This record gives sequence, structure tokens and C-alpha cells, in this order.
Amino acid sequence: MRNFPIAKSRRLRSTPYTDRIEAHGVSAYTVYNHMLLPASFKSLEFDYEHLKNYVQVWDVAAERQVEISGKDSAKLVQLMTCRDLSNSKVGKCYYAPLIDNQGLLVNDPIINKLAEDRWWLSIADSDVIFFAKGLAAGKKFEVEIKEPDVNILAVQGPLADDLMSKLFGERIRQLKFFNFSYFDFKGHTHFIARSGWSKQSGFEIYVENSLAGQDLYDYLFEVGKEFNVRPGCPNLIERIEGALLSYGNDFDNRDNPFEANFDKYINLDSEINFLGKEELKKINQSGIKRKLRGVKIEHNKIDMYCEKTLFDDNNNIIGSVRSATYSPTFKKIIGIAMINKPYWNMKDQFRIEIDEKIHVGTVCDLPFI
Amino acid sequence: MRNFPIAKSRRLRSTPYTDRIEAHGVSAYTVYNHMLLPASFKSLEFDYEHLKNYVQVWDVAAERQVEISGKDSAKLVQLMTCRDLSNSKVGKCYYAPLIDNQGLLVNDPIINKLAEDRWWLSIADSDVIFFAKGLAAGKKFEVEIKEPDVNILAVQGPLADDLMSKLFGERIRQLKFFNFSYFDFKGHTHFIARSGWSKQSGFEIYVENSLAGQDLYDYLFEVGKEFNVRPGCPNLIERIEGALLSYGNDFDNRDNPFEANFDKYINLDSEINFLGKEELKKINQSGIKRKLRGVKIEHNKIDMYCEKTLFDDNNNIIGSVRSATYSPTFKKIIGIAMINKPYWNMKDQFRIEIDEKIHVGTVCDLPFI
Repeated sequence: MRNFPIAKSRRLRSTPYTDRIEAHGVSAYTVYNHMLLPASFKSLEFDYEHLKNYVQVWDVAAERQVEISGKDSAKLVQLMTCRDLSNSKVGKCYYAPLIDNQGLLVNDPIINKLAEDRWWLSIADSDVIFFAKGLAAGKKFEVEIKEPDVNILAVQGPLADDLMSKLFGERIRQLKFFNFSYFDFKGHTHFIARSGWSKQSGFEIYVENSLAGQDLYDYLFEVGKEFNVRPGCPNLIERIEGALLSYGNDFDNRDNPFEANFDKYINLDSEINFLGKEELKKINQSGIKRKLRGVKIEHNKIDMYCEKTLFDDNNNIIGSVRSATYSPTFKKIIGIAMINKPYWNMKDQFRIEIDEKIHVGTVCDLPFI
Repeated sequence: MRNFPIAKSRRLRSTPYTDRIEAHGVSAYTVYNHMLLPASFKSLEFDYEHLKNYVQVWDVAAERQVEISGKDSAKLVQLMTCRDLSNSKVGKCYYAPLIDNQGLLVNDPIINKLAEDRWWLSIADSDVIFFAKGLAAGKKFEVEIKEPDVNILAVQGPLADDLMSKLFGERIRQLKFFNFSYFDFKGHTHFIARSGWSKQSGFEIYVENSLAGQDLYDYLFEVGKEFNVRPGCPNLIERIEGALLSYGNDFDNRDNPFEANFDKYINLDSEINFLGKEELKKINQSGIKRKLRGVKIEHNKIDMYCEKTLFDDNNNIIGSVRSATYSPTFKKIIGIAMINKPYWNMKDQFRIEIDEKIHVGTVCDLPFI
């Protein structure tokens, strides 16, 4: 892959931690919610091994918050997702696909319930704020919708609890998965959730005071020395192994939530009112014609700029890979692919062209690990 | 400025022309509407001089289209903009700020009227599709909203008419500014507008067939040899000199259209119904407290990652620069800045810190040229 520099500008927003991660050796960026998101430090494979064994601090400020508050806020949030939030509780995080009127996916945020009338949607890479604003204006809802200046630091890896308890006290070890609470450090109170875009466990600190966040970043590295802390970021290898889906990569606004395996977050039988409910009922009755599956390919290198088509032995298209990487654990390429029916249960090998050569692979279950 | 490579992925979509512009020497990318947009070729200054003297072909597929069609399409499009479209005509392009319920800017597309019930919004960098979908769902409008597979090639520069007429015939010279029509080449019909994100005149070809577009790209370079054609892209120097505003750089969803100098596109006295109309009336009555102005700074280099604050001699903040570049024409830095009242008419010098040194500059009118 040839390297092309990113042309920085105000439009590709820096974060409060950008100077720090550049001093710490960030080696590539992606852009996510109009903001710089680090994509690698030492190397994808080095970062991957380190993440699975120690603890990393991530600048994931690009996970922007859409704050929805006011009298009709619960109604608006529910209207945007097929997940039933009627029994949702303050202090909990809800992974929830957002759906448009046609039953197609808009985003897959974590919805944090801050109060009965105040929510933070911690979003993937699409402008949910304008979806919410459009809908609220159309419905004449009494809500306030804004993007607060929240810049998340994630602390991820098996030693995350050890590092975080040094700063925030032993109580943080008791925080349950997809719960959040408030913790103090050096005179500042931080919203901290047990969550994060890795399967190695850890926390996300929703930093509301940028200066306090920069201090926190520095302390995490100072205190983290004994745990071999390093800077990191969502890691392509680790996230594909764990099948953490990425909006824009694995699914987008042309896909419905059944195709993206979101079945357990689709509550068609409840009384709740959400966009696309009738469309999703129709899709559920008629059945889907393709869905996301894993693929393993017998090769050691793949560059993914766009979908790559998969063929069977008779040159029928069976689907296409959307994300893929070489996995040092599996010693082959692993990927997430949209596979057509009935090929999604295919046992035979498929064929794929990589760098002008044909390679073979197989369809498999997700996640890989 | 240190260079950081961009980590490509399917989420940062390639265009049908990406292979070609990489073969032609693209030297940096930005990301725009979740798509790769070239930011420079030989160098900003070389590209600038060439653009002002010859003709360039630009891959601006990242100017995505939001297609709105159906019975209520005109009502929906009008609801999103403060520009009066009640007398709009098929075949014309309308530059139009989009406004939310609070009177804040969402985008500044060119709205192309394809038919009374079919529109293409050629958008700047924000997900207008979700704003439209949310609003349409809330209002229960009968519309279809989608992103068609349209990938614009722009042909820009003083020799654009000469080059385009070689391919599309002499009729194209008669196409008026911000009008579009249909032109044939090698068996394909192309929607072509006299428009583009430079002040050097030229055309935008809204390519609907990617293969035909790739052929067209190749022919433009073959036929263009005699006009010294080169690959190019929206040029930071040229666009700041001409004050072509950039959503996300010069203004965003925290600014209202009066602050961004969109006065002539704000039709408060008409009968039309649009979001934020009452808010804009209030702002119009009370008056704005800041607005976009030009600045000239006595220095030869500036890197813009974020806003830079401007101070007067008494250390009062007078505003902040949002975009800036060295201009070889003015032999100084020129920029677009949000300046507070009453400083927007300030004649004295302001001070700005660049690379840890203080430099001086003055406020001036836009555009520069």
C-alpha cells in the first residue's frame, strides 16, 4: 500500500490529545465524525500484541456525543432505535442500532442514559445530530440537541482495572460492563463507563474538561509505567477477531439490521414506536437474502479500500468482503463479509482476487475469538 | 508540518477515479463526506499557478448528491433552506444554505433542480441525507431520499471551455453560470453544470456511469494535452483568495447564516416555510455579534489544524482565524476569520501567535480577489 499524507485542516478536527499522541508516535490517522482518530502507533501487529497483554490509553475523542435532553427526549431517542428502551435505567449504556424510515441502518451508538430526560448517544461515523434535529423539528418535539465538548479517553487491555484503580480508587473495579458512574481525580469528577471498542475489557472516560483530560492523559502514562502502558487505538486485527462492527466498513445505510446480525436489538413485538418498524416487520416475515459472516482467506496480506467480491467455483458471486486483515493468531486473513443466501452456510472454498492473484477462503461464524 | 499517512479503509470511500489520480501523482488526501478527496498534486503553489493559467481535471466525487424526489420533494427541499426556491426553474443550480430549527447552519449545497419533483443537493461535508430523512419521517412527507452513485469530475481553469468543447461540442460554451444541461460523448449522456469550487470558471460533470466516467477522465487528459491539462483539486490558496467558504472550516453548525455572510440567500420576507425562520427573524432584529471577514498576516507560513485566536494591543480577543494559507499573489498569509463586533471594522493591527512567535495582521474585506 502506498502511503498518502492526510492534509490537516480545521474541518478534520484535532482533539485535546492530538499533540500528546503525536509526541507518542502515532503513525497513521483515519477520519471519524470529522475528527482525527489514530489508526496505528508502532505497527498494527505490535499494537495488537500489546493490547492483548497489557494496557493502552486511546484518544477516541472522535466517538462524539449527541446530547438529547428535555421533555420529549426519551420519545425521540426511542423513535430512532429498534431496541426497546422502555425499561432503560439511568447509569446504564445501551448498544442500539439507529434505523431510518426505510428500515435501514443510520448508526450503531452506545446510548448512555444520564437522566430520565438526558441522553448521550456515543456515535459511530455518521452525523446522527442532523438525523435527530430533522426528526425533532418534523415532530415538533420539545428537546435540546447538541454536541457537547466531550472527548473520550479509553483505557483498554487486561491491566486496565489495575491502572484505573490506581487513579480512581478500588471502587472502579466493581463497575459492571455497560454501566457508568462518576469518579474523582485531582478535583475533577469524570463520567466513566466500563466499555470500549476492544474485547480486552476496559473503560471509557467521557472527559468534559479538556485541561483535566490532558492532565489525566499524562497521569495515566506516569502511573501506568509499572503496567507497561502504551498509547493505542481501536486495532483492526483485534476488532475483526472480536467482530466489533464498524459503521461505514461492515455495514451502512444500504443495509438493514437483520443483515448486520443485530437481531437481539430488534424489538418488533414491543409496544414501542420507532422509525422503520413496519418495514422491519416486513423484512422479518419475508426473510433476508444476505447477512454478515466471517471469512478466512489463505493468504498473508490484504489492503482494503473497497468491497472485494467473492466467487464460487462456477463464478457465481457469493458476496463481498467489507473489512479484512492478516491475523497473526490465525496465520491467515480474516474478514467480515456480506454473504448472499444460500452461500452463507457454504462449506466449500470461495475464490477472491488479491493483488491480481486468486486466493481461496472459507465462510465461518463471527466472532473469530 | 509533520506528515501523517491516512489509513485507508472501505469507510473512507475511494472514487471511480482514485487509481487514476494516484497514477497522476496525488500527494495528499483529505476526507469529505466519508470519501477520499485529493488535497494537492505537485504542490499547493504549483497547482495554484497552473489552475489560474490552464485547465485542470478534478476528482470531486466527494461532492455527494442527496437525491430528493416525489410528491412532497419541493416542500422538503424548501423546508431545509432559507433561500426562496418558489420561483426556481428546472435546469438551474441554486447555492443555498441549509438551516436547522435553531437557525444554525447544516450545510451549503448547490441545489440542482432536475424536475419539479426531483432534486439533487450537491453537498459540502455533512450528512444532509440524515437531516432530510429525519425531517421527512417527522413530517410524514411522501418523498424518496437516497444517495445516487454520482461521481463528479470538475474541469476548471481559463481553458476549460476550450477543452470541454473539444469533447462535448461548441454548444457547451453557451452554457450559462449555474445552469446545467445534458451533453453526449461516446454514446453516453452527461449532466453538466457550469459551476465548480474555483473562481477560474469551468464545469462539473455529474457522472452517473462510472465506467463512462473513467473513459471520460482518460479522454480529458488525451484531448487536453494541447491545453496543458493537469490533474488538480480544490486549491486552498485559490479558494481562500476567492472566499469560497468551506463548511467545517469557515463555518459550521454553531454559526448562523448572517454570521457567515449568507445575507443574500436569506429570504425572511417571503411566504415560504423553512426551519429556523422565526429564529433568523429574531437574529436579524437583534443583530449579529460576529461575522466572517478576511485577514492578512505579515508572515509566510501557517499550519491550520484548529482556530487561532486574534488579539488587539490590549490583549482583548477580537476573533479567530478558521482557514488560512500563504498567498504567493499577496506575498503574505491570507485567511478567513470570525471577527467579533465591533472589531470587524478594525483598522489597527491585531496580533496572532504562529509557531510560538507573535505576528501582526489586519482585518479586510472578502473576497481578496
